[in-house]
Amino acid sequence: MTIAYDGTQYGGWQIQPNAVSIQSLIQNALSLILRNETTITGAGRTDAGVHAEGQRAHFDSVASIDLHKTIRSLNGILPPDIRIVDLQMAPDDFHARYSAASKTYYYHLHLDRTADPFKRHYCLHVLHKVDLSLLREAAQYFIGSHDFSSFANEAHLGAAAKDPVRTLKRLDIVEEKGGVRLEFEADGFLYRMVRNIVGTLLDVCGGRFKAQEIPKILQAKDRRMAGKSAPAHGLFLMHVRYASEEEASITSNEGKLSTLLSSNSF
Amino acid sequence: MTIAYDGTQYGGWQIQPNAVSIQSLIQNALSLILRNETTITGAGRTDAGVHAEGQRAHFDSVASIDLHKTIRSLNGILPPDIRIVDLQMAPDDFHARYSAASKTYYYHLHLDRTADPFKRHYCLHVLHKVDLSLLREAAQYFIGSHDFSSFANEAHLGAAAKDPVRTLKRLDIVEEKGGVRLEFEADGFLYRMVRNIVGTLLDVCGGRFKAQEIPKILQAKDRRMAGKSAPAHGLFLMHVRYASEEEASITSNEGKLSTLLSSNSF
Repeated sequence: MTIAYDGTQYGGWQIQPNAVSIQSLIQNALSLILRNETTITGAGRTDAGVHAEGQRAHFDSVASIDLHKTIRSLNGILPPDIRIVDLQMAPDDFHARYSAASKTYYYHLHLDRTADPFKRHYCLHVLHKVDLSLLREAAQYFIGSHDFSSFANEAHLGAAAKDPVRTLKRLDIVEEKGGVRLEFEADGFLYRMVRNIVGTLLDVCGGRFKAQEIPKILQAKDRRMAGKSAPAHGLFLMHVRYASEEEASITSNEGKLSTLLSSNSF
Repeated sequence: MTIAYDGTQYGGWQIQPNAVSIQSLIQNALSLILRNETTITGAGRTDAGVHAEGQRAHFDSVASIDLHKTIRSLNGILPPDIRIVDLQMAPDDFHARYSAASKTYYYHLHLDRTADPFKRHYCLHVLHKVDLSLLREAAQYFIGSHDFSSFANEAHLGAAAKDPVRTLKRLDIVEEKGGVRLEFEADGFLYRMVRNIVGTLLDVCGGRFKAQEIPKILQAKDRRMAGKSAPAHGLFLMHVRYASEEEASITSNEGKLSTLLSSNSF
């Protein structure tokens, strides 16, 4: 299942007390349609206010499913800020999270002097000067395999916390009208890792850290050494890559959802 | 004053009972800052759910005003979905509405099969086929000076209703990722005119009318002859042009607000 959502109104992806989660709404709709209590497992647990263009999830069903009809039925039940973009049969051993080869997140910075009402839920508005060459210089220190403990908040997620080494394949700084987006691709991310890296990069631009201090911060393996977490609303889970899809050349609808993020306009 | 706003949460521009209006919020903020009851006059009365990138308004003040400080103060008081983009001194005889040489509205159609959660408040999602060449053919019939009574809802606006002739300078169909936008520029617009033309154009695409029937609909001067009104949320007041600004080469900040509408991305 490929899912796009505007996370503004939700307590995050994961089911939790005292907040409406995206996972629970999809599970409830799916359970209703399949007439069977169904649990879905997402590729990434996005926090409250974080958005997704290409979240992925899997579920098991004993009943056979008409894929197109199920997409339509789900979208008929779900609120308009959550859309099922695609639904495909997966191999029996497929797991939305564990089978993922990489995930891509974007973080958007809006750098105009005046805030833009249409970006308020989708970009961090930064008023201080952001030097793009300094941003790019600092970003390079994060690329590669590192123990990212200094950039991970406590997660209570069990296994992930035991191996805090992740491989950041790229961290590209891409100019877009009114600002920049930071594109992160990694084999996996620790809890809050993208937002903590963005916060630290902004601290470099603001003069709190020097770019050359980043290796020292990584080596400290201490969350308190890095910058504060950037707000949730600039963050988008864009894409989850699966080796099985590339091998099998499964075509996905992901690229078809023309989005605010990559479009020339609406 | 140049104003951008996301109209989703508001009852429209104009002060009205039982709804929060954009005009009232700006007036209240301005009255507070100037310590004087102040009324603002907008260039266009956008309806509930209609957005603006370049709404303009004027007000009179006996006190001298620090323009930049007043922008900052207003934006400090106003909610984040309303932003004052620019503030300038105007000639004594300037009137935001009557001095306007032309106004430009955009209407956005999203044409992908699956709705996009990030466009739900900003584009009309059209599921039926929209033939762009047919849309362009039909659009041509509206260009020029016409009595647009068939495309005007009752307005209770007084003077405007007495002369229902308007000159549509252009109606361009511009492809954008995932859909198209219709760009309307006219010396003025009757109440609901853009939305009623869009609704009729969609009826042409849906087969209810033939493009060649549009002159007959215009000549009827009867609202019941045209198509239904397209929803408010696809409509944006983009720009108000004043001859005085062009003559005096007053530079405006309008173009600086990089927007979802015209940007490559956020």
